Amino acid sequence: MIIEEIRVRSSKREELVDITHQVSQFVSKSDIRNGKLTLYVPHTTAAVTINENADPDVPHDIILSLKNIAPSLAQFRHLEGNSDAHTKSSLIGCSQEVFVKDGKMLLGTWQGIFFCEFDGPRHRRIILGLV
Amino acid sequence: MIIEEIRVRSSKREELVDITHQVSQFVSKSDIRNGKLTLYVPHTTAAVTINENADPDVPHDIILSLKNIAPSLAQFRHLEGNSDAHTKSSLIGCSQEVFVKDGKMLLGTWQGIFFCEFDGPRHRRIILGLV
Amino acid sequence: MIIEEIRVRSSKREELVDITHQVSQFVSKSDIRNGKLTLYVPHTTAAVTINENADPDVPHDIILSLKNIAPSLAQFRHLEGNSDAHTKSSLIGCSQEVFVKDGKMLLGTWQGIFFCEFDGPRHRRIILGLV
Repeated sequence: MIIEEIRVRSSKREELVDITHQVSQFVSKSDIRNGKLTLYVPHTTAAVTINENADPDVPHDIILSLKNIAPSLAQFRHLEGNSDAHTKSSLIGCSQEVFVKDGKMLLGTWQGIFFCEFDGPRHRRIILGLV
Repeated sequence: MIIEEIRVRSSKREELVDITHQVSQFVSKSDIRNGKLTLYVPHTTAAVTINENADPDVPHDIILSLKNIAPSLAQFRHLEGNSDAHTKSSLIGCSQEVFVKDGKMLLGTWQGIFFCEFDGPRHRRIILGLV
Repeated sequence: MIIEEIRVRSSKREELVDITHQVSQFVSKSDIRNGKLTLYVPHTTAAVTINENADPDVPHDIILSLKNIAPSLAQFRHLEGNSDAHTKSSLIGCSQEVFVKDGKMLLGTWQGIFFCEFDGPRHRRIILGLV
């Protein structure tokens, strides 16, 4: 398995950062031409998702929906005040799998890979593993 | 890794289509008797989930819940009008993993595999990879 | 692939049970020092997630959020009355992936692994596979 870490810098509290190009570069330079890629986010207020990256309004609307779905609740106990971000992290999930064929990710026509920031702005990292 | 694509045709805007039988056939005819199966949906308004397929009221209620959880919002910007479907896709996720033992999926007693349509009816596909 | 099953006993209807230690023991005693671990929950009203396990208020708040996100709806048809639990299971997901390096899981500083009970108390199981 080839493992590498990439860095992401978010600029807002909640943001979907398109990392498709960075991930694609890791895949294309690796020696494994056919296999499976795992993306793993080692943070508890962030996540990784695959969704449309053609129209920037799609990630905008997903962030808006998630705010609506998991708002801050009066009964929250966690003193850091970011329990909504922890919930969003578990809803979206901290890993994704993508097939690789002939040195390229088998993404659908409209699919891109987004690092999901729910408690930024922060410096973050994602672990990529290709096997 | 053995890779194959299966086709799914949805008949409603939102629908959980039971694909357990199709996936099971792919696994049983493959030469790999023990390993792990990855299911991957290359669409941005669809997903794949594992849940109860004994009582058809369960997928019905999950669809109902998801409509309630991720409704269309007035502030959405994406002009196609299907941002709720993109959100549901990221909430459920576009891939699933299942162990395979002696040529059969290690699903729990009540578990079945569902293709999740959130913006149908459409012709869709799912990529299966067994390793 | 090394496969093993671990047991979890939940004590409430909804509960996040920290299983990091049990999973870590399985990984450290295995012969595979570098690879990838898959956790799989063979139940339809439970799930597995990775989130903060330092402050017990975080799992408390996540459970609270999920109750708020996926309540029981009057229009539910499933007669067992636990459709909210089935929905939560699909939202969080029944599997997780974690990299393993030098015999240890590559979890982030604040990350722990939680079995998610949504229809307990029950005796449950999780399948671990390391490759």
